[in-house]
Amino acid sequence: MSQATAGAPMPEATRILSRYVAEARPEDLPAAVRHEAARGLLNWLGCALGGSRHPSVDAALAGLGPFFGPAQARILGRAEQADVLHAALINGIASHVLDYDDTHARAIHPSAPVLPAVLAYCQWKGLSGMDLVHAYVLGVEVEERVGLSVFPEHYDRGWHITGTAGVFGAAAAVGKLLGLDTRHMCWALGLAATQSAGLREMFGGMAKSFHPGRAAQNGAGAALLAAQGFTSSERGIEAPRGFGQVMSSKFDPTVITTGLGERYELLQNMYKPFACGLVVHAVIDATLQLRREFGLRGPEIRRITATVTPLVQELTSKPAPQDGLEGKFSVFHALAVAIVQGAAGEPQFSTAAVRDPAVVALRGKVVTVIDPTLHKLEGKVRIELEDGRVLERHVQRALGSLEHPMSDADLEEKFRSLADGVLQPAQADAVIAACWNIEQLDNVATLAELTAPQR
Amino acid sequence: MSQATAGAPMPEATRILSRYVAEARPEDLPAAVRHEAARGLLNWLGCALGGSRHPSVDAALAGLGPFFGPAQARILGRAEQADVLHAALINGIASHVLDYDDTHARAIHPSAPVLPAVLAYCQWKGLSGMDLVHAYVLGVEVEERVGLSVFPEHYDRGWHITGTAGVFGAAAAVGKLLGLDTRHMCWALGLAATQSAGLREMFGGMAKSFHPGRAAQNGAGAALLAAQGFTSSERGIEAPRGFGQVMSSKFDPTVITTGLGERYELLQNMYKPFACGLVVHAVIDATLQLRREFGLRGPEIRRITATVTPLVQELTSKPAPQDGLEGKFSVFHALAVAIVQGAAGEPQFSTAAVRDPAVVALRGKVVTVIDPTLHKLEGKVRIELEDGRVLERHVQRALGSLEHPMSDADLEEKFRSLADGVLQPAQADAVIAACWNIEQLDNVATLAELTAPQR
Repeated sequence: MSQATAGAPMPEATRILSRYVAEARPEDLPAAVRHEAARGLLNWLGCALGGSRHPSVDAALAGLGPFFGPAQARILGRAEQADVLHAALINGIASHVLDYDDTHARAIHPSAPVLPAVLAYCQWKGLSGMDLVHAYVLGVEVEERVGLSVFPEHYDRGWHITGTAGVFGAAAAVGKLLGLDTRHMCWALGLAATQSAGLREMFGGMAKSFHPGRAAQNGAGAALLAAQGFTSSERGIEAPRGFGQVMSSKFDPTVITTGLGERYELLQNMYKPFACGLVVHAVIDATLQLRREFGLRGPEIRRITATVTPLVQELTSKPAPQDGLEGKFSVFHALAVAIVQGAAGEPQFSTAAVRDPAVVALRGKVVTVIDPTLHKLEGKVRIELEDGRVLERHVQRALGSLEHPMSDADLEEKFRSLADGVLQPAQADAVIAACWNIEQLDNVATLAELTAPQR
Repeated sequence: MSQATAGAPMPEATRILSRYVAEARPEDLPAAVRHEAARGLLNWLGCALGGSRHPSVDAALAGLGPFFGPAQARILGRAEQADVLHAALINGIASHVLDYDDTHARAIHPSAPVLPAVLAYCQWKGLSGMDLVHAYVLGVEVEERVGLSVFPEHYDRGWHITGTAGVFGAAAAVGKLLGLDTRHMCWALGLAATQSAGLREMFGGMAKSFHPGRAAQNGAGAALLAAQGFTSSERGIEAPRGFGQVMSSKFDPTVITTGLGERYELLQNMYKPFACGLVVHAVIDATLQLRREFGLRGPEIRRITATVTPLVQELTSKPAPQDGLEGKFSVFHALAVAIVQGAAGEPQFSTAAVRDPAVVALRGKVVTVIDPTLHKLEGKVRIELEDGRVLERHVQRALGSLEHPMSDADLEEKFRSLADGVLQPAQADAVIAACWNIEQLDNVATLAELTAPQR
């Protein structure tokens, strides 16, 4: 079932990873990693605030509110508070529901399963900004390594890897905050393994954003249980009936165990300038460039041909989206709205934008061509005008990619846009400042309070 | 990936099953099913009380107690109360941790993922005994059909089907109590599908009992979210990236959709007379028969040869268990302690019994022979004595099987034994009476109060 079983003996991936997390020291974090943690935190907070009024958050609060424990942590951007576990769930949903959160260069939205758990736990215990940074970095390291050990077969099979791997990240991060030793960390990761879940069938509905939320909640629970001696297998990742071999046709434990502490997966993190799936970004980028250069508005266009990777077809091929969320899964809508409105931020993926007659009309003129030789972040756009002209643009790597990253200023702008209508401008500025100074923050609860809405 | 995709079109299993649950009426339940529900309830309550002092329950309460919401439901056999969701989790753990709970004739421990959720929700809302019975029956129906649609390949792959299928049962049962219509029930089952989890790697540790507990909690959560309009796929079970095809190499949706309302899976339920895995029961039964007939005590035995199914080897082959829980996963211990102590109830799977020198000595004389032609509940024992005599017994179907079921009186006796030390004898009698009269109970909270320990 696994590559590894046929070759060398299976390394003790769970124990090696657990020991690394248990023994890691914040003073060993490189400055670049710490700065990326601040960028990731700012981007994630913006997404959580931007998603905080979404109907999925309202529904989750209505459905689960009667079971909330003590007010230990804030629901970001809202008046409600909750116990740590429910706060992790709700903020996890909010931060992913816009599909605007960060993406590792290979796979997984790394922050949405980890930061909700870390932020809530740190608030409750009054831990420092450096505690948060360290736990966040380690959580991302763990979820990425575990996820990439089964990638891409695991994802291809139908698992939403942000959920299935994310639970390991939350368990490791909260386990670190709890000070678990290697053995207890093994139990935490085992309890994470046995809660690993999330199906790609849920894409396009609220249940997709539920995945990182539940991963944050359940991963935190795994660590909290392990801390009290609730035991599990100590080989939950690599055993024949563990995560890797049950949930994937390919499992390479050396991805988990090699180079720990030498490289940091957080440095592979990317932030989205556009409020939809990353795979569409290159053709949006190309379309917006052509719009700017040629003054396009829509009616003059006969046809838009987007040459895209097979993933675009697989993930974003809804031809006639009915609401804003479905619009995020439609390359046809994304390019049409980019031409009509000249942007592709959160407002362009509202239900109003999706139903705008000008956008709907142009949507029908968008066609896709699949080119499996393209990089995931590469795309080409060819626009034929009614007057016979043909405009073309090839984007090698979209804005937001590692090769063409969003600047710190870009991230501040994105945060302000997402926080608009939730926080006052001065509050937004204060949150931004707190993120850039996160390592100096004595008590994370201070940051959380800054995200509370105006009374 | 699935049998069904190669042949006829995939039926809408999620919708068909959801409609059945949404439209089912309690007055249509056959009397035999209602009586089996009372038996199942009594047996499950006994197991939950018997497990209520287990270290896994202590650890779970210590780890998660700080996050409990309002006191809506009892932790059975203990002073603590919790919100509905945490009560479902903890009682689910307690009821499975002894591995003494019920087992469907083909697969799944049906009550442990369903009844904790149903009991907690009914308590909170003051619902009737008949509400509980109906939701319980439907929950078992759903989890069994979903589980059997992928059985045995799903289990063989490494999934603990009591967890993976149980979450559907809890979602359906609580969804019924919430009065969900077909569409909302589809969402509940979709949210269950995307939380389906639990690895067989966890067998032999506390994490195994965590599976039905978490299934109860997460299934209840799925229904509560769906009731508030938290959406999911409406094809969570049968879609190409849904439960059946992602989590198994075999998926037959007709198992889910055929004969709904015509047969009841609860009638295939079995109760354990011995406090360990069902697959060992036949050889325990045979061993106890030989002990009684020949006055065996241990020292006179040269060798015990148990001829068993491959499942015994797979599930219970710990040669040198170190504590009571591991003893449940050791056929060697089970037969040795049956000879030495003349029983195989919960006390025989205590750590003290596992470490009893007489039992340890005899354990080394037990050998197994695998016979794949045996039925799961069949076994043979051959005992060679030091004096040269050879005793043999072939048990076709163990006590507790459908063919040789435990009587109502047997179940009462088992309950009293499990409740001993937790409830006063008069309390135990009152619980037994309440179970036999469950259909007449106005308010399930009354039953729950009877399970509270003496002040």
